[in-house]
Amino acid sequence: MGKAFEQLQPYLDKDMALTTALTLLEWDNETLAPADSITNTSKAIGILSQEQFEAIINNDVKNILKELESEEEYDKLSQKEKAIIKQLKRTIRQLEDIPSREYKEYSELSAVAPAIWAKAREHNSYEEFAPTLGKLIEYKKRFAGYRQKKGEELYNILLDDYEEGINMDFLDNFFERVKEEVLPLLREVSKHNDTISKAYNTLSYPVEGQREFCRWISTYIGFDFNRGVLAESAHPFTTNLHNKDVRITTNYHEHNLESSIFSVIHESGHAIYEMGISDKLTQTIAGTGVSMGVHESQSRFFENVVGRSYEFWKPVYSRLVSTFPEQLNSVPLEDFIRGINKAEPGAIRIEADELTYTLHIMIRYEIEKMIFKDEVSLEDLPKVWDDKYEEYLGVRPASAAQGILQDVHWSCGNFGYFPSYAIGNAIAAQLYYHMKSIMPFDKYLLEGDIKPIVEYLKENIHRYGTIKNMKELLTDIMNEELNVDYYIRYLKEKYTKIYHLGMK
Amino acid sequence: MGKAFEQLQPYLDKDMALTTALTLLEWDNETLAPADSITNTSKAIGILSQEQFEAIINNDVKNILKELESEEEYDKLSQKEKAIIKQLKRTIRQLEDIPSREYKEYSELSAVAPAIWAKAREHNSYEEFAPTLGKLIEYKKRFAGYRQKKGEELYNILLDDYEEGINMDFLDNFFERVKEEVLPLLREVSKHNDTISKAYNTLSYPVEGQREFCRWISTYIGFDFNRGVLAESAHPFTTNLHNKDVRITTNYHEHNLESSIFSVIHESGHAIYEMGISDKLTQTIAGTGVSMGVHESQSRFFENVVGRSYEFWKPVYSRLVSTFPEQLNSVPLEDFIRGINKAEPGAIRIEADELTYTLHIMIRYEIEKMIFKDEVSLEDLPKVWDDKYEEYLGVRPASAAQGILQDVHWSCGNFGYFPSYAIGNAIAAQLYYHMKSIMPFDKYLLEGDIKPIVEYLKENIHRYGTIKNMKELLTDIMNEELNVDYYIRYLKEKYTKIYHLGMK
Repeated sequence: MGKAFEQLQPYLDKDMALTTALTLLEWDNETLAPADSITNTSKAIGILSQEQFEAIINNDVKNILKELESEEEYDKLSQKEKAIIKQLKRTIRQLEDIPSREYKEYSELSAVAPAIWAKAREHNSYEEFAPTLGKLIEYKKRFAGYRQKKGEELYNILLDDYEEGINMDFLDNFFERVKEEVLPLLREVSKHNDTISKAYNTLSYPVEGQREFCRWISTYIGFDFNRGVLAESAHPFTTNLHNKDVRITTNYHEHNLESSIFSVIHESGHAIYEMGISDKLTQTIAGTGVSMGVHESQSRFFENVVGRSYEFWKPVYSRLVSTFPEQLNSVPLEDFIRGINKAEPGAIRIEADELTYTLHIMIRYEIEKMIFKDEVSLEDLPKVWDDKYEEYLGVRPASAAQGILQDVHWSCGNFGYFPSYAIGNAIAAQLYYHMKSIMPFDKYLLEGDIKPIVEYLKENIHRYGTIKNMKELLTDIMNEELNVDYYIRYLKEKYTKIYHLGMK
Repeated sequence: MGKAFEQLQPYLDKDMALTTALTLLEWDNETLAPADSITNTSKAIGILSQEQFEAIINNDVKNILKELESEEEYDKLSQKEKAIIKQLKRTIRQLEDIPSREYKEYSELSAVAPAIWAKAREHNSYEEFAPTLGKLIEYKKRFAGYRQKKGEELYNILLDDYEEGINMDFLDNFFERVKEEVLPLLREVSKHNDTISKAYNTLSYPVEGQREFCRWISTYIGFDFNRGVLAESAHPFTTNLHNKDVRITTNYHEHNLESSIFSVIHESGHAIYEMGISDKLTQTIAGTGVSMGVHESQSRFFENVVGRSYEFWKPVYSRLVSTFPEQLNSVPLEDFIRGINKAEPGAIRIEADELTYTLHIMIRYEIEKMIFKDEVSLEDLPKVWDDKYEEYLGVRPASAAQGILQDVHWSCGNFGYFPSYAIGNAIAAQLYYHMKSIMPFDKYLLEGDIKPIVEYLKENIHRYGTIKNMKELLTDIMNEELNVDYYIRYLKEKYTKIYHLGMK
């Protein structure tokens, strides 16, 4: 370790420790904390957030970083140290112009806002959430404004925070292709929807059995319970303190078998990414998934590409049937596979199938663009939301709870995050074709041997943390950047098969 | 708020926020964190502990406190502010001479040590824990040594940390009385032990039923689940983030009904104390139970004085029977009351009845005294332990796991803590006689009306946080300091009744 870098260590340590604390506080709020706790607890969260802010936004850190910019010093750095510095500079750029007190107030607000949102959703009242939503949007605009260059779009700043190099130009093209290709495909598929029955899915599935199966399938695909936890929360999510403490949640509905299974596979995909970060990188600012897009590529790769395939279920379906014999004995594997892939336009993103999912994201992308271009007022948002659902999915949400209030993201201050899901879908498809070309992918699945697949991802993606960004990861793996064509091809091939030819 | 006090606020805020984080990390370690997580997590704990240390141990805080010592400034302070300053000074005195790096190392060690202890106990190997125990003792000696005045005993310093004003002179007298009075009583009682059967206790009690009953009884005595959590851990304990987030744990054994019930009542007693702290004090350094002794007085008041009484069970026993009809239908309430109060010398503290409990504490007190007077070597500890058990309880522990390794406390660095249990027992008995003299105590219990009892404790003890110390609390309530006579009288009356006269 160079001497200049060594001087950074105490600041990095403090940042790491405070990240650990704040992550755990957030996890605890979502999974366990008592109903009346958050107002008091958010005060502590605000203070810790400010501490973390000040740990890296200060002149000492700035001066050390300047010193490290000299060619002589920079050349001494290891790959890991370079990644840390890159990540640190990125974080500093995002925060440095925000007054630390404002950051604290925002942190407090975004700690209590999810509870306000949850109540508003329960009461089906957009009005109840709107003032908080308005404040969050104001903060986000102001914070992005602090670092806005002349002529730069605010929303591009937020998009880049979640995925380096991604902007509206890219996404406009991306979603244009989706509209051209997916909308007609969806229309075609919808004509044949009566050929697929998924009546089995809403039978009664006792929660204890779901819990047991989910735990098993999570282990099956590579989640390590010595380094991880599976708990319950209103909305499934993944978080981690480091690579040996990775946590996922789900929720169980007696009359919806797929909900818990696929959310657990999805979150396990996120978790396997974080568990795969190298021991040398974990607990550093570079020791986590590189971006939300790459993260979603891993979760959706496991959930959809792997988890909804015939090859994946062939060796394990009997276990599900033996967990729920009465419900599934009369459902052949082929019917189950068609069922879990049935495409039906609906109002709810998290219940969406693979074909319509990206349309839900497209709607959010278009609305966020409007918000940050000041093209929509706070009070018009519900109508704009509903209109877009009617336009693209042919479904008008029955209520605010089913519409504008359905997602937690905005209440956490996550604007610009949604496109990550679409990017994740596209990366997952691209990885799929590549992996099929270099390994007996289907054979592994059919033989119940998931390990080589996980190992490949670990070796080529997970272990790097933020050392490589999305573009570098993809280029190093496949000599090609992100290309939406693979995703379109994937959906076409898959749905053609599911709807016209059935399973072989 | 005076101007000088205002300057303290940022330091107090930071201390509060870090306490919140560290408390949650500890809770999480004990209840949920995955097996392999602690080594990494302890690094974050070490850093946060050091941050907390430095938040209050610094010249700025010292100077502000000096300013506040002037009569003029001090007179401006509110009762709450005075309590905060007193508590802050107490904490500073405990820490200020410790080098902050040493404090960090110690914090890391005491974060991982409980896991090392747990494994050693599992392997029944004192040797496996001894090196860690040795290090912890060394730290404790060194830390107490930093503030040792000439001629002062190290162990007195530790005792005073847990209970202001308590020292070996007091405890020697205390335990002398216990020996004189409890040992003969125990001998007498033991002669009649075959008159009480508690065979019901080891029947099969499905855990789900225990869980449900424990949750109910906790609510019954005043635990508020909107402000609290009941979880599971290897050893029952209570912790809190503030007065609206108080958490207790228990563990369930299919063949031990009493274990979960009484541990939940015990921990609920602690929790009700913390829930009763005034809103104005919570999240300040003065906003928690004033001492471990007073804390234990509340938990043991509910567990034993209230929770093992005929009057308490009269209105609720039928609910327990209806939860476990097969097991308890044939056990009349009177037999149940005699059973839950049966006194039997054993090797395990947490399984001890009310009569022998303080003897377990006396043994630990005598051993801790030897440790801090350098009168026993690390390797001799197990033998000394076993010898004392043989001497006082007539039982020689069958193994290290049943002997020296049975308690978690030392692995957390808690030396000088055990006497709090004895003090708590004594305070609980003293409070009992006082409360009986001023309110229809038994009538409340018989009518299932616990509220006036809780309200009295809240009004006279809980809400004060650390504003009054133990001596002040007792004197203000009863015009009398801690007096062991009440405790002796309580045990004599109770056990005479249980063993000679039975229940009326």
